[in-house]
Amino acid sequence: MKQDLSPGRLRELIRAGKWTKPTTGNASGYVQANLVMLPREEAFHFLVFCIRNPKPCPILDVLETGKVEPRIAAGADLRTDLPRYRIFEQGELKTEVGDVVDIFHEDMVSFLLGCSFSFESALVAAGLPVRNLDEEKNISMYITNRTCQPAGPFSAPLVVTMRPMRPEEAVRAVQVTTRFHLTHGAPIHLGSPKEIGVGDLSRPDFGDPVTIRPGEIPVFWACGVTAILAATSIPLPLVITHAPGHMFVSDLRDEDLTLL
Amino acid sequence: MKQDLSPGRLRELIRAGKWTKPTTGNASGYVQANLVMLPREEAFHFLVFCIRNPKPCPILDVLETGKVEPRIAAGADLRTDLPRYRIFEQGELKTEVGDVVDIFHEDMVSFLLGCSFSFESALVAAGLPVRNLDEEKNISMYITNRTCQPAGPFSAPLVVTMRPMRPEEAVRAVQVTTRFHLTHGAPIHLGSPKEIGVGDLSRPDFGDPVTIRPGEIPVFWACGVTAILAATSIPLPLVITHAPGHMFVSDLRDEDLTLL
Repeated sequence: MKQDLSPGRLRELIRAGKWTKPTTGNASGYVQANLVMLPREEAFHFLVFCIRNPKPCPILDVLETGKVEPRIAAGADLRTDLPRYRIFEQGELKTEVGDVVDIFHEDMVSFLLGCSFSFESALVAAGLPVRNLDEEKNISMYITNRTCQPAGPFSAPLVVTMRPMRPEEAVRAVQVTTRFHLTHGAPIHLGSPKEIGVGDLSRPDFGDPVTIRPGEIPVFWACGVTAILAATSIPLPLVITHAPGHMFVSDLRDEDLTLL
Repeated sequence: MKQDLSPGRLRELIRAGKWTKPTTGNASGYVQANLVMLPREEAFHFLVFCIRNPKPCPILDVLETGKVEPRIAAGADLRTDLPRYRIFEQGELKTEVGDVVDIFHEDMVSFLLGCSFSFESALVAAGLPVRNLDEEKNISMYITNRTCQPAGPFSAPLVVTMRPMRPEEAVRAVQVTTRFHLTHGAPIHLGSPKEIGVGDLSRPDFGDPVTIRPGEIPVFWACGVTAILAATSIPLPLVITHAPGHMFVSDLRDEDLTLL
């Protein structure tokens, strides 16, 4: 039995410690976001990195230094309103925690980036297969051989998600996801995984493998994990991100982000 | 007789001091950009201002501190390749110059922002009236009663351009310009100028008035002058911008910026 909570109610439960699992599939119709918090000194360069690589790193909100209430969710607090956070020191993952009240500090800047959950609902609504949802798995993610445009000290390979579908479904998926230009938009590649350096689809770099049926081709979208790799590509004293699947749930509707 | 030069050739003439007039209508099909250069200390906040107000301030390129060659025009130099620059000190316009080689310094950051020239060609191609082009005038610009989302110390009222057309043409213009989301995109208002604080269409705040024919309504698009007002809304020691109509001509094609 599926509860469907409002974004505000879901954030309230999370803040109270009563919701610690992934946010995937909840508060449906509302935009969920990737979180990256890093020191003020490197905030400008990280922002330029995102602007130069808008498909993997679409910016939904940037907070001013030390601020924790985003414009896209009134009354929210980014230190407490995600169910799980990752703490990186010197570019290395150190631990996962339930809130960052004692870790976030006045000299940090928070970024919220678009996430593919927004267009997955639209794919489902269009009758297209979203295998990771059907099989209740985490999306398959791969590190490609394409490098992002660097900015200042930040660099990263492009990370992609993959959803298998029949070629005619892939055409429709291009149309449907083009509308969602602030949540990764149209695919960056389809068919021929080797072209983008993906050797074995059954062994994703992150997430779970999914079934690829006869006659299906892999369709690849730019992925927000790219931003996490960039943020941790240099030895910053502290970077805070969401834990995979444990996103920030905003008050924006998916439809608010579409162009047409 | 209209010459049509390539962007590279036009920049070459400008750099050599052989082209000092506006760039409007030249190198057609290529993206022209607004330029803002300001001190590194405030670059992050200015960038956040642009991100929070993407319709008036669509970012085409941000250069790293002290750099002058944009990614959207190989071999170009932003200090010499615009025909005319404006120099602001403490938020006040001080002078206009033909290059900024001796004024730009290592601690400044350059921003290139989209400009409505990109969609004007598309309007013309769709058979829609662009009165300022027909009458060979500068576009009419108005300061509205709408305020942009502030960021750090930066704030500005929304500035708009206006093109008069018949209502059925306005509908088509919405469709045509929606594609150009990185060069101001769809109109922000149409009809009823008083609603946005514009009292007298025959007295624009910047540019020239144009003829409004019987049966036509004003159609308003967000305007890049908003970014100039924001950059000069605080007393920075130095801000450099293009002079109106004297834009940076990039190697990007207008079509490269469309979503569909």
